[in-house]
Amino acid sequence: MPPSIYLQSLKAMKQEVADLPSGPLDVYRRKASFPWKDMLIFLDGEEAMALKQRVFTALENDPVFSRRPGEDLPLEKMRELTFLRVKQLFRYDFLTNDEAMADPWKTVVLNDCLGMFDWSLAAKFFLSKGMFARTVASSGSARHHKFVDAIDDMTAYGCFALTELSHGSNTRAMRTTATYEPSTQEFIINSPDFEAAKFWVGNLGKTATHALVLAQLYTADGACHGLHSFVVPVRDPKTLLALPGVLVGDMGKKLGQNGLDNGFALFHNVRIPRENLLNKTGDVTPAGTYVTPFQDPDKRFGASLGALSGGRVSISRMALVNLKLALTVAIRFSATRRQFGPKDDQELPVLEYQLQQWRLIPYLAAAYALERFSKSLFGNFVEFSMRQMMRDHSDTQAELGRELHALACSGKPLASWTAQRGIQECREACGGHGYLAMNRLGNLRDDNDPNCTYEGDNNVLLQQTSNYLMAWMDAKRRDGMRIQSPLHTVDFLDDFHQIRDGGFTARTVDDCMDSAVALAAYKWLVCFHLEESHERLQQLRSLGQDDFAARNNSQVYYCRDLALAYIEHCCLQRFHEWTRDDDTPSHLRAVLQKLCALYGLWSLSGHMATLYRGAFLSGKEPAHLIQTAILSLCAQLKDDAVGLVDAMAPPDFILNSPIGNADGQLYKNLWSTVMQGHQALERPSWWKEFCADKPVVGSLRAKL
Amino acid sequence: MPPSIYLQSLKAMKQEVADLPSGPLDVYRRKASFPWKDMLIFLDGEEAMALKQRVFTALENDPVFSRRPGEDLPLEKMRELTFLRVKQLFRYDFLTNDEAMADPWKTVVLNDCLGMFDWSLAAKFFLSKGMFARTVASSGSARHHKFVDAIDDMTAYGCFALTELSHGSNTRAMRTTATYEPSTQEFIINSPDFEAAKFWVGNLGKTATHALVLAQLYTADGACHGLHSFVVPVRDPKTLLALPGVLVGDMGKKLGQNGLDNGFALFHNVRIPRENLLNKTGDVTPAGTYVTPFQDPDKRFGASLGALSGGRVSISRMALVNLKLALTVAIRFSATRRQFGPKDDQELPVLEYQLQQWRLIPYLAAAYALERFSKSLFGNFVEFSMRQMMRDHSDTQAELGRELHALACSGKPLASWTAQRGIQECREACGGHGYLAMNRLGNLRDDNDPNCTYEGDNNVLLQQTSNYLMAWMDAKRRDGMRIQSPLHTVDFLDDFHQIRDGGFTARTVDDCMDSAVALAAYKWLVCFHLEESHERLQQLRSLGQDDFAARNNSQVYYCRDLALAYIEHCCLQRFHEWTRDDDTPSHLRAVLQKLCALYGLWSLSGHMATLYRGAFLSGKEPAHLIQTAILSLCAQLKDDAVGLVDAMAPPDFILNSPIGNADGQLYKNLWSTVMQGHQALERPSWWKEFCADKPVVGSLRAKL
Repeated sequence: MPPSIYLQSLKAMKQEVADLPSGPLDVYRRKASFPWKDMLIFLDGEEAMALKQRVFTALENDPVFSRRPGEDLPLEKMRELTFLRVKQLFRYDFLTNDEAMADPWKTVVLNDCLGMFDWSLAAKFFLSKGMFARTVASSGSARHHKFVDAIDDMTAYGCFALTELSHGSNTRAMRTTATYEPSTQEFIINSPDFEAAKFWVGNLGKTATHALVLAQLYTADGACHGLHSFVVPVRDPKTLLALPGVLVGDMGKKLGQNGLDNGFALFHNVRIPRENLLNKTGDVTPAGTYVTPFQDPDKRFGASLGALSGGRVSISRMALVNLKLALTVAIRFSATRRQFGPKDDQELPVLEYQLQQWRLIPYLAAAYALERFSKSLFGNFVEFSMRQMMRDHSDTQAELGRELHALACSGKPLASWTAQRGIQECREACGGHGYLAMNRLGNLRDDNDPNCTYEGDNNVLLQQTSNYLMAWMDAKRRDGMRIQSPLHTVDFLDDFHQIRDGGFTARTVDDCMDSAVALAAYKWLVCFHLEESHERLQQLRSLGQDDFAARNNSQVYYCRDLALAYIEHCCLQRFHEWTRDDDTPSHLRAVLQKLCALYGLWSLSGHMATLYRGAFLSGKEPAHLIQTAILSLCAQLKDDAVGLVDAMAPPDFILNSPIGNADGQLYKNLWSTVMQGHQALERPSWWKEFCADKPVVGSLRAKL
Repeated sequence: MPPSIYLQSLKAMKQEVADLPSGPLDVYRRKASFPWKDMLIFLDGEEAMALKQRVFTALENDPVFSRRPGEDLPLEKMRELTFLRVKQLFRYDFLTNDEAMADPWKTVVLNDCLGMFDWSLAAKFFLSKGMFARTVASSGSARHHKFVDAIDDMTAYGCFALTELSHGSNTRAMRTTATYEPSTQEFIINSPDFEAAKFWVGNLGKTATHALVLAQLYTADGACHGLHSFVVPVRDPKTLLALPGVLVGDMGKKLGQNGLDNGFALFHNVRIPRENLLNKTGDVTPAGTYVTPFQDPDKRFGASLGALSGGRVSISRMALVNLKLALTVAIRFSATRRQFGPKDDQELPVLEYQLQQWRLIPYLAAAYALERFSKSLFGNFVEFSMRQMMRDHSDTQAELGRELHALACSGKPLASWTAQRGIQECREACGGHGYLAMNRLGNLRDDNDPNCTYEGDNNVLLQQTSNYLMAWMDAKRRDGMRIQSPLHTVDFLDDFHQIRDGGFTARTVDDCMDSAVALAAYKWLVCFHLEESHERLQQLRSLGQDDFAARNNSQVYYCRDLALAYIEHCCLQRFHEWTRDDDTPSHLRAVLQKLCALYGLWSLSGHMATLYRGAFLSGKEPAHLIQTAILSLCAQLKDDAVGLVDAMAPPDFILNSPIGNADGQLYKNLWSTVMQGHQALERPSWWKEFCADKPVVGSLRAKL
């Protein structure tokens, strides 16, 4: 867009964005090097901003969504409230199916908005409307449209049942069976024992009427055809009572996301029509013959799980949203909380302390890095999915699938762990006030936590990524082929030897301010770990270990580090390019480039030992330069920090954290919330237990 | 004790320890290299074992302490239950004041036991009986005994009110005032505004009748004499209603420890008798003259806060207890959870995977290291306190006080962060099942969390330790004096130059199996950071920064690292000596030495970059040796891991985690608990919300 039009449209959009209330944060807002509204507009764009505003305003004005910071609700109440809110979402229909199809990014924006309010709400809504209905639509055929329609008008409620009590990561080992009976043309769904009960299924605890059950398909001849998906009715939609043969219930309290009813189900020879098999990747004829378009059972297995791959991309985004919220709270708090100072009567905001800057600002940089990464990764995923829908069977599409899998399997660990650690740091950086439930940091930590383990434990997933990288290297060694992938995340490996021979070239702190420095170091790091992992595997095999053992024993310090270095490099690479992109407004580039340099150096500092060990660095100077640059960037960014969170923060009603309110009236907001707490000033209902019935000290000692 | 008597007494004690139930964990128990009961007896000793057993048995048999894993209780109910349990503790009187005096370690054992059950209970009990009553006894005089007596028979309930809404770490900045009025011989306690409200006070929310309030003492002449402690009645013991002028209430829900009622209080010119001033460090005559045995106000301030120093020692222990419980759950889970395997029908316990071992076993080693450290540190503290009571005013006693302060201010960060990270790793290592509230890992994480921030934010406290170390170095440089401290934790610094010139001497993996290797590296590390921190401070001062700025800007990468290296060295040193002590049974030494080597190398691996940067290490080999040794030690210890947690684990009733039960029946216990969950199989009370009143999709869209 030509600059003049850009400026006009920017001006128009800025008028749409409400000003933030004046208060103690003004000092920092005035010192910021950029207008926060410009950053907001740049990050979100016009349409996403409009959608966010529509959702946030509706929620804030609707009593169904009303709540109080830190309120204490029983499990049953949380689930009821969440259900009522989901129902209200159907009424608002913020994003019609057509709108979502026209711009898939908007589903992410909507999920961000709902998640910022409460992840249970987002999960409860999307598990039925997205996960269940989308999978039925994509893995089934015309005969299954009725299930999708029923979800869309809420006559049915769906859930996705894969995990079993005794198996999670090892999906192939699932033991639920679906046996076809030609005489009745039915599948008999059965759980062999309670250890094979479906477990952890979101929505199954209280609400789901239909489950998409993954089960081993058996034909009457006793042959097992592997895992397939079946639509299994579990509750009567008219009564919400369990159907005969289905033992279904609620797992109870979790560490977080308690508005979502996770549940279990045991199937006692439950009969479903033949047609309830989702038959895209394999079908059974009425007579009982198994037919499939795939020859290779491994490919079929991959395809039947393919529908899951978008989950990890979404989770990366969800983790980022949590990190953004936590940073908003912690940085606004740090800018207004004063403690100590050069003189007793001159206390400084804690954000002025180098230590506090170093604890928080690198996570702010990480949030901007992950913002770019999660958005671009989603773009890649959409491109892949579109081609799938258009039945692209090219080699490039297959390659793209593998690369995306490698990115998603390491992107989820990167985002979820960064968020986990960042939220914990935010919580500690807010001291005692961070430990009050009303300030929401605990809620964010608890709700973010499953991101580290569901859709694959992070540590286990990383192996997928390292396998992908090792395979490239093996192919290169074996066939001398050029390393080049559709998204170019591995292309640099083709210069392996040149990169491995390189070293650290920065000579001054100023040199390190360019994110190219960290980027070059990361390229070296990936190559180094690739070589070491390869050698380790070779060595273990030469010692006689079989493939299973050799792979397991080359994870720690080898393949695991390789996968992490690769994904951090990708994330940094995309951020780096973004800060230099022509579409990035020139007046925002300076601050983005600082964030990028900080993210790069800070992430890299976790690998410093390897950089030394492999002689990429030597002597005291390089580490000194990097550390000095990190501290200098933190200091340069501290006056921008409030503006940087303003650009990511939702309205106060959504953030729901008195110490994080946009007006910066830390103590007034906190005190007011405390004073309005439930029974805050009342004596306890059990006061007589103290005032009468005094204990006789030692009266029970004789019983010991 | 001669060996023969030791063996006889060991045999007798072993008969006292109940066997663990047989089950899937037997495989590992049989493979262990040592008898777990011997380890238990060695760790605890006869008297502590007997006390633990007495407490655990009483709690298990008493319906007041009955509970269900993962139960969902409202805040008010949690507080009521906790209060009723505290009352029951008065009836049991597990440890009389005389018994506690005769063997102070038993107070720790009792706190361990209560905390293993529920930290809210332990806190609610000790904040009144210990913190309030002990401080009144030690900071007051004969005229205050009545308050202690009232606490002891529960006619009164106490709390300790230091922190204010707007001030925590900066205790000097507290603004509550106590102004003496000679005409009435009363102090007038006043909060100038709500920002000076006492905040975060445990027991003050619902229960406390008396608060120990820290306030600035003013005499009628307008002179301020600094912070002093006053006993202020806040609620009528007959009604639990607030007294006139006291606005007192409950802060609401916290991330954890919700059985404890933390509260706030605003004082509106509340009058208390002159005698309620705790007058050990300063008093006001009836006529209104301030008198003090101290000349130096700084010394007086130090003494008035001196009573707090034991808190950090206790917190280190509390953090360790949490880590022990989490490890018990995660290791028993890992030994019984099977996933993947060399063949499809031959799944391995996840503890067999190197990755899982590396995630958990180093924390197990850390738990044993901290066991020794926290116990010995408590011993040092008791010795110091005894001498204080005997009015030892020697230089050595003053030195001991400084050293203890340095140890406690870094020991709390070490223990609480190790526990924080370890519990998080345990939670993730248990996958989804770790996210179920009933398995308790969330509760442990939440209850451990405040250990990182109360009694001083960890990062802020570390500055006390580095200041101590820097002061030694300054004294050495200035006066050439010999560095030697009462507990000998800094003596090695006298060989500074020799140590700094040293390097890594291990040449094989076997060499690294000796904890002396890591210990030597730590000595170098402390010296290196000491030198760097000193130079950094000098440099900043030479650039014109004042002392306040120079100190703040030399924390990250300098003083902070110094304090952490020092305390890790101390912890390792004590563990190292313990494994070689004559009193350590010879048949337990092998496993303890492995744990010690692992703890040393694993902790050290966090500093590898510094070791390279400072040229203590060079080339690829040393890091390779250390990493190989860590993995080898994990592999060697995996068969001992179950025995090692058995020796630390409380009975199942106390542990309260189905996946962590001693019988190892992971799925049976989990399933049984889920099935007995509250309303687990019932349809939701709000079922009609789904079955009737269907939403009209988009009906509210027009309102947007």
